[in-house]
Amino acid sequence: MSGTLNKAVVLLSGGMDSATCLYWARAQGWQVYALSIGYGQRHAVELQAARRLAQALPVVDHLRLELDLRAMGGSALTDDIPVPTAAPATSSIPVTYVPARNTILLSLALGWAETLGAHDLVIGVNAVDYSGYPDCRPAFIEAFQTLANVATKAGVEGHAFRIHAPLLHCSKSEIVTMGLALGVDFALTSSCYDPDAAGQACGLCDACRLRLAGFRAAGHPDPIRYRAPT
Amino acid sequence: MSGTLNKAVVLLSGGMDSATCLYWARAQGWQVYALSIGYGQRHAVELQAARRLAQALPVVDHLRLELDLRAMGGSALTDDIPVPTAAPATSSIPVTYVPARNTILLSLALGWAETLGAHDLVIGVNAVDYSGYPDCRPAFIEAFQTLANVATKAGVEGHAFRIHAPLLHCSKSEIVTMGLALGVDFALTSSCYDPDAAGQACGLCDACRLRLAGFRAAGHPDPIRYRAPT
Repeated sequence: MSGTLNKAVVLLSGGMDSATCLYWARAQGWQVYALSIGYGQRHAVELQAARRLAQALPVVDHLRLELDLRAMGGSALTDDIPVPTAAPATSSIPVTYVPARNTILLSLALGWAETLGAHDLVIGVNAVDYSGYPDCRPAFIEAFQTLANVATKAGVEGHAFRIHAPLLHCSKSEIVTMGLALGVDFALTSSCYDPDAAGQACGLCDACRLRLAGFRAAGHPDPIRYRAPT
Repeated sequence: MSGTLNKAVVLLSGGMDSATCLYWARAQGWQVYALSIGYGQRHAVELQAARRLAQALPVVDHLRLELDLRAMGGSALTDDIPVPTAAPATSSIPVTYVPARNTILLSLALGWAETLGAHDLVIGVNAVDYSGYPDCRPAFIEAFQTLANVATKAGVEGHAFRIHAPLLHCSKSEIVTMGLALGVDFALTSSCYDPDAAGQACGLCDACRLRLAGFRAAGHPDPIRYRAPT
């Protein structure tokens, strides 16, 4: 009975991880609502990818909120700090870290979920190939779920929120394999931190390196176009 | 030595509670940064009050971020649902509740704090005359502090965040008394959910009722103007 289907809010950046989450949520039998945030990121091409993915599924609704985090400063993804092209150092937090980004994104998803009567939130973080961001770890997901259930009317009234991070323990190659099995068209996705005006990926930033290594390890060609030789 | 002063981010709506928090933060000896969010609220007059208060202290910096929560719907403060003028029911969560509002506000404060190198966040919630909002309770503040320390670079690196809610256990009359002792000019503040174009308070909504009762109990006149007899 469609009237009894759970609703889920999926954070959809337009990258390969959130695209996989979108299809994963559908595979759970949920009514899927996609939320994208225009937060002043350099890679606005991602938001176009988000729209294409939301149409392809299709979702019940796709909400795009604008929140200009550039006013805060602090990251190469929103500032004029150059995006690094060297291989990432594994022991430190990179300059592409956006302060409190996933906390902000999940809090917005929580607000929309309350309005919709949804109790399932889905975010595509993962703790394996995660670039060293603190808000991509299991402890972060657990702490946010605890918060959601004391912060909200629904939580207080006994409708527990669940924060799903289905990619948390997946490598990039496992995400490629999982996404293909779920029917994701990775040609619609965009991962690059520094795409050109035509949306072509650089092939050199952390996000491109992780993505390319993932496809290579999964034994599948990456269907998007790169401007640098890969 | 001014170079060693702690920085604090204070959420400043322009109401009497956040104004008291602003002066409380200064009294701790901190460098005060004020954050106001334009979230599509009806009572934009509050944001003008926030600017006046930030100038009066004065703060080191006052950041105003725009985030239009009207796209989400769900509250009389951002929607076309009429603001109730009857006395509040004490046992239920009112229609003026904005979904996940304080979670969203604190997450934005956390992002700015990380950029600034601040580890103290101040929010003017209180659990006494709190209108029944779930995100105004001690359990919410504790859960957010736990989250902040796993979600951020600073938290991971051992600089613990502290979420201060100095009004948490104060009645409205105690807030009036505390604010006056700290030097707050309450004439600069705005609390009404439904002010007129000139910024005059209605005197009838929940926020006006709580404010007026607080001043009455504290034995001080409320210096702002009301359009209805109080």
